[in-house]
Amino acid sequence: MIIVMRPDATKEEVKHVVKKVEEVGLKAVLLEGTERKVVAVIGDERKISYDMWNVTPGVEKAVPILAPYKMASRELKNTPTAVPLDKGRATIGGKKIGVIAGPCAVENKKQLISIAKKVKEAGAVALRGGAYKPRTNPYSFQGLREEGLEYLAEAREATGLPVVTEVLSPEQVVLVCKYADILQIGTRNMANFLLLKAVGECKKPVILKRGMAATLEEFLLAAEYILTHGNPNVILCERGIRTFEDHTRFTLSLSVVPRLKELTHLPIIVDPSHGTGKRSLVNPMSKGAIAVGADGLLIETHSNPEKSMVDGPQTISLEEFERLMKELKPIAEAVGREM
Amino acid sequence: MIIVMRPDATKEEVKHVVKKVEEVGLKAVLLEGTERKVVAVIGDERKISYDMWNVTPGVEKAVPILAPYKMASRELKNTPTAVPLDKGRATIGGKKIGVIAGPCAVENKKQLISIAKKVKEAGAVALRGGAYKPRTNPYSFQGLREEGLEYLAEAREATGLPVVTEVLSPEQVVLVCKYADILQIGTRNMANFLLLKAVGECKKPVILKRGMAATLEEFLLAAEYILTHGNPNVILCERGIRTFEDHTRFTLSLSVVPRLKELTHLPIIVDPSHGTGKRSLVNPMSKGAIAVGADGLLIETHSNPEKSMVDGPQTISLEEFERLMKELKPIAEAVGREM
Amino acid sequence: MIIVMRPDATKEEVKHVVKKVEEVGLKAVLLEGTERKVVAVIGDERKISYDMWNVTPGVEKAVPILAPYKMASRELKNTPTAVPLDKGRATIGGKKIGVIAGPCAVENKKQLISIAKKVKEAGAVALRGGAYKPRTNPYSFQGLREEGLEYLAEAREATGLPVVTEVLSPEQVVLVCKYADILQIGTRNMANFLLLKAVGECKKPVILKRGMAATLEEFLLAAEYILTHGNPNVILCERGIRTFEDHTRFTLSLSVVPRLKELTHLPIIVDPSHGTGKRSLVNPMSKGAIAVGADGLLIETHSNPEKSMVDGPQTISLEEFERLMKELKPIAEAVGREM
Amino acid sequence: MIIVMRPDATKEEVKHVVKKVEEVGLKAVLLEGTERKVVAVIGDERKISYDMWNVTPGVEKAVPILAPYKMASRELKNTPTAVPLDKGRATIGGKKIGVIAGPCAVENKKQLISIAKKVKEAGAVALRGGAYKPRTNPYSFQGLREEGLEYLAEAREATGLPVVTEVLSPEQVVLVCKYADILQIGTRNMANFLLLKAVGECKKPVILKRGMAATLEEFLLAAEYILTHGNPNVILCERGIRTFEDHTRFTLSLSVVPRLKELTHLPIIVDPSHGTGKRSLVNPMSKGAIAVGADGLLIETHSNPEKSMVDGPQTISLEEFERLMKELKPIAEAVGREM
Repeated sequence: MIIVMRPDATKEEVKHVVKKVEEVGLKAVLLEGTERKVVAVIGDERKISYDMWNVTPGVEKAVPILAPYKMASRELKNTPTAVPLDKGRATIGGKKIGVIAGPCAVENKKQLISIAKKVKEAGAVALRGGAYKPRTNPYSFQGLREEGLEYLAEAREATGLPVVTEVLSPEQVVLVCKYADILQIGTRNMANFLLLKAVGECKKPVILKRGMAATLEEFLLAAEYILTHGNPNVILCERGIRTFEDHTRFTLSLSVVPRLKELTHLPIIVDPSHGTGKRSLVNPMSKGAIAVGADGLLIETHSNPEKSMVDGPQTISLEEFERLMKELKPIAEAVGREM
Repeated sequence: MIIVMRPDATKEEVKHVVKKVEEVGLKAVLLEGTERKVVAVIGDERKISYDMWNVTPGVEKAVPILAPYKMASRELKNTPTAVPLDKGRATIGGKKIGVIAGPCAVENKKQLISIAKKVKEAGAVALRGGAYKPRTNPYSFQGLREEGLEYLAEAREATGLPVVTEVLSPEQVVLVCKYADILQIGTRNMANFLLLKAVGECKKPVILKRGMAATLEEFLLAAEYILTHGNPNVILCERGIRTFEDHTRFTLSLSVVPRLKELTHLPIIVDPSHGTGKRSLVNPMSKGAIAVGADGLLIETHSNPEKSMVDGPQTISLEEFERLMKELKPIAEAVGREM
Repeated sequence: MIIVMRPDATKEEVKHVVKKVEEVGLKAVLLEGTERKVVAVIGDERKISYDMWNVTPGVEKAVPILAPYKMASRELKNTPTAVPLDKGRATIGGKKIGVIAGPCAVENKKQLISIAKKVKEAGAVALRGGAYKPRTNPYSFQGLREEGLEYLAEAREATGLPVVTEVLSPEQVVLVCKYADILQIGTRNMANFLLLKAVGECKKPVILKRGMAATLEEFLLAAEYILTHGNPNVILCERGIRTFEDHTRFTLSLSVVPRLKELTHLPIIVDPSHGTGKRSLVNPMSKGAIAVGADGLLIETHSNPEKSMVDGPQTISLEEFERLMKELKPIAEAVGREM
Repeated sequence: MIIVMRPDATKEEVKHVVKKVEEVGLKAVLLEGTERKVVAVIGDERKISYDMWNVTPGVEKAVPILAPYKMASRELKNTPTAVPLDKGRATIGGKKIGVIAGPCAVENKKQLISIAKKVKEAGAVALRGGAYKPRTNPYSFQGLREEGLEYLAEAREATGLPVVTEVLSPEQVVLVCKYADILQIGTRNMANFLLLKAVGECKKPVILKRGMAATLEEFLLAAEYILTHGNPNVILCERGIRTFEDHTRFTLSLSVVPRLKELTHLPIIVDPSHGTGKRSLVNPMSKGAIAVGADGLLIETHSNPEKSMVDGPQTISLEEFERLMKELKPIAEAVGREM
């Protein structure tokens, strides 16, 4: 950490800063510049709360040198992590691109199994479907809950596909784990730290969606919560951020994919359905995601998007999904991957 | 709702739209413009999922006419709601400005009671203090938990001030209600719908902080969750939004205060501490908040901000708090309010 | 246009609105809903200033049905426009992807000609280079000005590549046109309407960069300025928008590419250099841009990025550029294009 | 400046960095931390391009210690600057709050003089009115141009009020200076560096509006352009930034006012009309601006806002303006200022 003193800082204030650094067992080096004095901290700066410096008399600002996350970082582990989706068959993060697809919400058993079969045929590695739906509007459909979980388990039996579903609160984790193979943390829960701990304590793979207003540092700190609570199977998911743009529901920020590859060993997938909120953009943005290096996709598809009870506008038909999967193949190969 | 057809929509597609409107018991009026056909929906448009139209063949877009929230709206109740903080003495939303103050986190009993006495003397109507702390960094201090709640209750005994504390998950609600007078929903939980329902079912006043990326419509829909679950005592709180600005941690958007006054009957307070993340800006932004019409403030203050375990940079000293309270008086009077 | 009346609008106010619509020769249809009265305007709503309604007594809001731009729209011209870069050889917007490359700033003749030869060999269709540099910092290098233009013209002579350079003000247009084949309007000038008119009156192709805070509607209105002043050769360029993200200088919003393809016939290229501000992200984001359907790229490359006088951090070496061009080929083919 | 080396940086790379620092005559101090090597630069770091380090082999990032602007900074001049609006009578930046008011666009002579008289009576210190209007839509009214400037001059003769008008391009500066007392640079031109230089060379006071996507550092660098070209009379103006918020046209960021007071000696005013785009919010946001410490306001007012040719929705009537001026008085006094 670099602690920059104010131009009018007194000698006593500088001494006080040096003393505080040394008190926690770190080394302080005082640099006397022409316009500012600066105290450089040598040692593991994570020992001191970074915030503290901003209220220490005479300090202008403190500049951290190290990222605040450790287990998620490339410095701890410099090879990509491939997260197994079920007993060792499919993974997210290996050479093969993993596409997870299914309806936004589980609506009924027959529909779900029929969709599951189709997405498997088209090449998906897992089935997604929401049993608990976090809806902005209290008057909207909130999901089938445990009944939905049961249908997901039956769809797995019928197809062999592992199933992904969202978990909304810490106390749901045990129940959802009974049925699902992979847990999903939604964008509105990325910073629900009790939930992060709870899924950390369970060992099932977790798809962690980026908060719609989260920086990459906050995103990786959320992953760190899960990792530090014992679960190494974290799959990051970019799903769009909130910006001033109004031609899409969110701005799908594809540059996070190659940037995360530099910062972390965790795999990263992209959700072009929520990330755009617009059906016609799912196909091109899926291609873009694979081209920039994503390890997989999370796509909403439905046999009849017009009748879909939730998020119809961003849901593609099963035919469109099948066509997309074919069109993705040459893109994946162009970047040295497989479908 | 206004449903705008695509320029190339067929007669059958237009008919299909009209039929869908009539199926739910609403009236459809077809308007044939020079460049577009438009279907106007007459009746309570909230009966139809707005999203559905965007996937109906031939439809370009659907434009809602009515706000999706009802109980929170000025149309339902056109007089301001004053929320009682305890048995009828203090309220937020009446003529008197209500200032809630205290440390970010409860650290120990002695410190808390001493701060409580000081903020009461200075004119605060309630004491704030975090027992459960949602921290971005898993390596940071996470709060004293139930022990913190006990200290809050003791601080109330010692001063008579009602106490406010944050609740992080649905299953905490019962426990926190045992100790606290007012519950707080943090910005990262504004869209935690299970939590909103849980605090809706409890009857204690709720301070609902705006999500850092939430529009006013989403903010009022979150309030609607609490209202529809039986709790009318909702206090809205603006605490800063995420933008490109980097001179403050968040952008405190004061225009939401007068705009919310036009849209809702619920009271609205402002948190200048989190909203700026900078101690030197708390005083001016508090004044700005009162000047634009806020019903109250939520302020972090501590006997020794440099030693504050959480959020030191935005915490003002008790002396600064006392001075601020005095300086707010003429501003409040200038806008027809009282301190 | 749809004019929504306030719930408390009087009969007189409604009549006044109807009268105002009819005064400009349009037809007004009054719809009496259960909660609101709405006046639908039939005819070319662009005849009335949309803003006016928001100050008309009794009006809650006015909702436009038509986009405010015409000449740029797909409705006027439903086939993609291919803009010729010079006398008919290369175009942007046809089947072939057009890559424009070169240094951020022209630094000296020898360097420029050497870079020009290399980018031509690698397959670029035009050479870029800044002679006038708009710099945020007044103490930074501001470009070689006319001398830089001369070197660009010499580089064209030496290689046959058409040259692109930025024009900063209306009075520069004539001079820059003397030397350059294609004019560039930078992000900070997208809404410099006098400049848009000036390049509209010249007939050379114009690369119009999106303003870093411009919506797609504002972007297309800026293009409309150029088109309405007589210049049909507009190439749109996405170059990143300003958001809260801090892992890149800007957020490169690739979803605008397929969305613009739906809204306009104009070609659209992407600038991954400015759009990320980070050299390591130029390769993957270029691939992403082609995969989502961009018609071309604008890339900064330099024989020695470390010595580049401007924007070094986002400049790739000539070797990296050559490799990128090869790697783009299979991506382009995967989406039905050619390099 | 602090140059942080990558964990895998070689000894040669570190040496190379030290050499580059020393080559420009600065001192380099090498700090060997436990996880990173860091090179601290002692001396005036503005001598080296900050960007260069990001492309130097082995460097992870460079962290500037000093702000890049000098003449605008508090370090250069620690007392507030009061900018004289005309020959010494009124200033912006002194104890007295300066309110500048008038129509968005000059429409005709009679209207302008009548408004000028009213705003003067109400206490305004200057008259605003646009002669050249930068309009997003090419089909909108573009202003009366020189005719408008003449009317402004006549309004000054009739009332004694100095007049403010916007200048759109460098070549307009001489003409506009002939008529106007104060020049305005609009938000879309904040980074039009040729224009900044041109108004720098003229000596008339300049109201510099913040770019809608500009950070405070970029804003102050724009002011620095004007200052370094010889004009010390710069008045900063916050006019709203672009964010995801949709309840106002822009987000008026009032915290910049007290923050700018810490960073610069230049006066700062607020434009609540453009900053909100909503007439009903002009009154409360004006009060908020004064309460947070603004030196003045820039307000659109018109005798008949409904008939205003430009920006009607945000224009208040002359009666509302008069009332606002009265209501601002106690707020100004509460913060130690005068109206």
